[in-house]
Amino acid sequence: MLSNINIILLGTSHPGNIGSTARAMKVMGLRNLILVNPKQFPSNEANSLAVGCQDILKRTKVVDNISKALKSSEINIGFSSRKRKVNFPILTIDECIDLISQNPNKNISALFGNEQSGLSNQELLICDYLVSIPTFKEYKSLNLSAAVQIFTYELFKKSIGEIKRPGNTHKLATTKEKSYFFSQFINLLTKTKFITEKNTKSLTKKIHILFNKAGLDRDEVNILLGIISSINKKIKK
Amino acid sequence: MLSNINIILLGTSHPGNIGSTARAMKVMGLRNLILVNPKQFPSNEANSLAVGCQDILKRTKVVDNISKALKSSEINIGFSSRKRKVNFPILTIDECIDLISQNPNKNISALFGNEQSGLSNQELLICDYLVSIPTFKEYKSLNLSAAVQIFTYELFKKSIGEIKRPGNTHKLATTKEKSYFFSQFINLLTKTKFITEKNTKSLTKKIHILFNKAGLDRDEVNILLGIISSINKKIKK
Repeated sequence: MLSNINIILLGTSHPGNIGSTARAMKVMGLRNLILVNPKQFPSNEANSLAVGCQDILKRTKVVDNISKALKSSEINIGFSSRKRKVNFPILTIDECIDLISQNPNKNISALFGNEQSGLSNQELLICDYLVSIPTFKEYKSLNLSAAVQIFTYELFKKSIGEIKRPGNTHKLATTKEKSYFFSQFINLLTKTKFITEKNTKSLTKKIHILFNKAGLDRDEVNILLGIISSINKKIKK
Repeated sequence: MLSNINIILLGTSHPGNIGSTARAMKVMGLRNLILVNPKQFPSNEANSLAVGCQDILKRTKVVDNISKALKSSEINIGFSSRKRKVNFPILTIDECIDLISQNPNKNISALFGNEQSGLSNQELLICDYLVSIPTFKEYKSLNLSAAVQIFTYELFKKSIGEIKRPGNTHKLATTKEKSYFFSQFINLLTKTKFITEKNTKSLTKKIHILFNKAGLDRDEVNILLGIISSINKKIKK
């Protein structure tokens, strides 16, 4: 999964960004990092930011020109925040992710330019498409590894399909269990005279709505029944 | 826009993450950062990573407990990657963004725990909802400021509605301009005998498809006409 995607960093100045990029990749299931003329690699700074990602840094390829980085690549996607005057095929980030998901067997490279100046004109000419991550008009300076993180996140999100809620495995209470709780609770409130003949209809409704909103699970119903029982013991004649 | 959203960092250990968070916020149009018991703030490390975001750091509030951070907050959303056993209202990231966009007048806080351990049990109890950013099952260690970046990116993306392609303002060639180019080009290829009576139909079709795929603009059509003209001059008797 996503093993056909390469992240290519071009002329990266700050070694910390290489470490952060490795982490941004691994946490979203990507493994292939290629560096073209990094200012410094390997480095302690990259290592210290790539917590738990030494495997990614170890397999990272370093090459001295962009053609070597892309020799097996079939689709090259450049990330660029600058407006370009030429008639270049530009994709939105969503279109870019769709294109990638429709080509699971193609070798695809995502190119990220130098921190200061982005992709050079020569680097642009190798790109089949350009993508611009949307940013706030008054401050467009997205950090390099943050841009990679957004891209890998969108890729991973698409790859897993609809996101499932994590950890919600406990049993919800059944209607029968909840009905028993409601009857016990309303009995109690009738005994305490909080519920009277006059208000029983409206209060019963409100109490049902309140507890139904809580999405009670079995444990919670048992806790509520325990509370009612403990109160009943105190108020019984 | 998005001015009702606060980012709350709880017990942050690495000052660099505070600087990166400020940048992750500003680039997506957020301004309100609150730090609860940061290990170190202000700091040179935060400043150096918050390139161009001194305004965000200057207005950042520092408080010594979570209640002070949330005193005006109406909806508290905790970010957590751990599975929780209790029946907590859990939202997917898309549901979280929808909830926020449906409440533009509510004061909303997004809480991010300490780098090592995330949100504590006590911090969880203040949250109305929990959100988990999806990550790769074999390595779930999303960097703190990367998590903030994904959240602010999703918020910003939603806030601007459908993303428009940047920079595509040049004029595409009209059908008339393209038709003239095609006729000139086919004339040329007939002269060079690349097109013959036999293949004219299939080649004409292929040539139209090839150039139509390029989405030619007016300049490009003029360049092609110039090329044809220069060749015509050389091959004319």
